Amino acid sequence: MTERFVFTVNAKDGHARTGRILTQRGDIPTPAFMPVGTRASVKALSPDEIAASGASILLGNTYHLMLRPGESLIAKAGGLAKFMAWHKPTLTDSGGFQVFSLSDRAKISDDGVVFASHIDGSRIELTPERAVRVQGQLGSDIAMILDECPPGDAPRKDVENAMRRTTLWAERQIHVARPEGQALFGIVQGSIHEDLRKRHLDEIAALPFDGIALGGLSVGEPVEDMYRIFHEIAPLMPTERPRYVMGVGTPADLLEAIEQGIDMFDCVMPTRNARNGQVFVMGGKLNIKQARFLNDASPLETGCTCPTCSTYERRYLRHLFMSKELLIHRLLTIHNLHHYGALMAGARQAIKDGQFSAFKKSWLEQREI
Amino acid sequence: MTERFVFTVNAKDGHARTGRILTQRGDIPTPAFMPVGTRASVKALSPDEIAASGASILLGNTYHLMLRPGESLIAKAGGLAKFMAWHKPTLTDSGGFQVFSLSDRAKISDDGVVFASHIDGSRIELTPERAVRVQGQLGSDIAMILDECPPGDAPRKDVENAMRRTTLWAERQIHVARPEGQALFGIVQGSIHEDLRKRHLDEIAALPFDGIALGGLSVGEPVEDMYRIFHEIAPLMPTERPRYVMGVGTPADLLEAIEQGIDMFDCVMPTRNARNGQVFVMGGKLNIKQARFLNDASPLETGCTCPTCSTYERRYLRHLFMSKELLIHRLLTIHNLHHYGALMAGARQAIKDGQFSAFKKSWLEQREI
Repeated sequence: MTERFVFTVNAKDGHARTGRILTQRGDIPTPAFMPVGTRASVKALSPDEIAASGASILLGNTYHLMLRPGESLIAKAGGLAKFMAWHKPTLTDSGGFQVFSLSDRAKISDDGVVFASHIDGSRIELTPERAVRVQGQLGSDIAMILDECPPGDAPRKDVENAMRRTTLWAERQIHVARPEGQALFGIVQGSIHEDLRKRHLDEIAALPFDGIALGGLSVGEPVEDMYRIFHEIAPLMPTERPRYVMGVGTPADLLEAIEQGIDMFDCVMPTRNARNGQVFVMGGKLNIKQARFLNDASPLETGCTCPTCSTYERRYLRHLFMSKELLIHRLLTIHNLHHYGALMAGARQAIKDGQFSAFKKSWLEQREI
Repeated sequence: MTERFVFTVNAKDGHARTGRILTQRGDIPTPAFMPVGTRASVKALSPDEIAASGASILLGNTYHLMLRPGESLIAKAGGLAKFMAWHKPTLTDSGGFQVFSLSDRAKISDDGVVFASHIDGSRIELTPERAVRVQGQLGSDIAMILDECPPGDAPRKDVENAMRRTTLWAERQIHVARPEGQALFGIVQGSIHEDLRKRHLDEIAALPFDGIALGGLSVGEPVEDMYRIFHEIAPLMPTERPRYVMGVGTPADLLEAIEQGIDMFDCVMPTRNARNGQVFVMGGKLNIKQARFLNDASPLETGCTCPTCSTYERRYLRHLFMSKELLIHRLLTIHNLHHYGALMAGARQAIKDGQFSAFKKSWLEQREI
C-alpha cells in the first residue's frame, strides 16, 4: 500500500466510525463528503468557499479532464489541485462511469473501453492501465480503478461478468506505476445481490488497495435495496482501510451508510440541485422559486451559519433565481455544501460521543421549513 | 438641494478634480466609477467582492427593478442597498433609457412614456413623477430624472424636442417628494451639438438639482464627437455640484472625461465584457479564449493585485472559459472591476499630485499584453 497515505480510526459507535486519512496534501477527517469538481471547478465556487463549507477533499472527473483540457496540460500546471488553486487533497474517479453515461458508442471488452468523445467525436481508448496513468498525470491524492459498472436493473449474468472484468482489471491496475504518495482504491461491484457483493468484496479486498469502494449503487435500483447492501456489506469491509460509497447521496442515504461504517462519499446532489433552486435544510428541502418566499425575510435555513444564510433573505434569493442571476447558483451551492459539511461534522462528533443514533434521528426529523 | 448630500472638491489639476460626495450611506471619493447592478446584483459578484474592487457606489436599473421584483417589494425589504446586502450608496437611473432600448411599443408624449413590459407584455406607464416616486421606493441615495434620450444619429429637430421635453419634465420632477437624504440629479441632452448642449445645460443647471449629468452620449455617435462634447461642455458645468457622464465607457473615455472635470461614471463594459472573455489590462485588452493562453502560467495581468490575478493562471482561466464554467464570469468580472477601481484610485491620486496628464499617458501606453 501507499506510503504517506495513512488511515486511522479514532472512535466507533456501533458499526459507525470516525477517523482521519493523512495524505501528503492534508488531512481528511472521516466520515467525509467530497464535493464534485467535474471540470476542475466546483461550479460557481472559489476554493475558499469550498473549504469554508467544511470539505477537506474534492473529487475531479477523469473523463471530463482527459477530454478538456487534457491530463498533460494539468500535469504541466502541477496537477489538479494546483491547477485549480485548491490546496487540499483531491480524489479522481477512473472515468469509466462517465464513458458509459456521456460518450457515444462506448464498446467494452476485456482490453478496456473504446468510445467517442462527447465534445468532438474523436475516438478514445481507455484501458485499465491508461486510467491509472491518466490519474497519475492529474496528480490526485486518491485514484480509483477503472471498473465496469452495470445499470441498476442489469441481469445477474451481466453483473457477474462485470465483477469478473473488474477483478481482472484490478489485478492489472495494481501494478501500474503511480506518483509517490498517490493512493489507489479498489471498487466492489455486485449490484443488489448480497452473495455477489460478498464474493466480489473478497476478491477486491484481497488486493493491496489503499481503500475499498462500493460502486454500482444509486444507479437506478430501489433505495431499500441500496440500504440493504449498506447493512449487509459495509460491516464486512476491511476495517483498517477507508470505505467509500461512490455517487451517494441524500443526507438520509449518507446517515444510513455512516451507521454501517462507511467513511467517504461523493455526490453531485448538493451542487447540481442548488442550480435548480433546491435547498437542503434539516428535515427536508425547499425550492427557492416557490411563491411563498416572495416576501419572506428569513434566511434559507434558520440557525444556519453559512455565508448565504448569514447575509441574504429568502425574498432576495428568490428574486435572483427568478431573474436568472448568476449569483444565485453560488449562494445556493454554498448553503447546500455547508449543509453537507455540517452533516459530516455532526456525524463525526456524534460518533465520538456515542450518540450517532440520536444524531441521525434528529437530523432527519420532520419540521416546518 | 438635499441635506445629508454634500459634495466637496479637494484638489484640481487643470479641469480635472478630485473630491468626495458624502451621503447618509457612506462616502464616495471622486472621480468614481459605479459598477452596474442591473437587477439588484452585479452579475456573479458578492457585495464584498464589489467593494474590494474599489467601488464605493453602484447603480441599479429602475426599469428592471420596477418590473421584477417591483419597487414595493424592495421598499418592504428596506430599499435596494439592504435588499442586496450592499452596505454602501446606490444610484438609480430613471428607467427611461431601458424603456426605449428593451420594452415593446414604447410611446412617448409630454405626459410620459407608455410601454409594454419585455417580461410579460403588460402595459406600463412611466410618468416623470412616477420615475421619481419609484426611485423613492427603491431608496437609492441618488435618483436620476426621467429624460428623453434620442439616438446618436437623431436629427437636430428631434434633439431639440427631447431637450424641451426633458426640461419640462425636470421642472415637474424637482417638486416630487423624495425620502429624506435622497439626492436628485438633472440630465443634460443636446447630442453632439455644442450650442444645444450649452443651452440645455443652462436650463438644467438653473434648477436645484444635487448633481448634473450628461446623458445621450455613447449612444452611437462617433467617439471624437463624444470627446469634443467633454471638452466643450464639462468645464462649463456648475463646479459645486457633482458632474456625471452616463453610460460611459472605456478606460480611455473615462480618462478623457476626467481630464475635463467629470466626477462620476457608470458602464456595463467591465462586467458585460468579462462575461464574453474580454479582460481589461493597462494599455489595452485581451480575450482569455485565445489559443496563446492554452499553457500560459502567468496571471491575467502581471502586477495586478486583484484576487483573480493573485490566485489563478491564464491557462486555468482559459480552461474555465472554454468549459463554460460559471466561475469564470466571476473571476473575470472581479479583475475588470478592479481594473476600473485602480484607474479611479490612480486618477484621484494623480490629480492630488498635479500629475494627471502623465498618469493618463502612462495608463494608455501601448505595451505587450
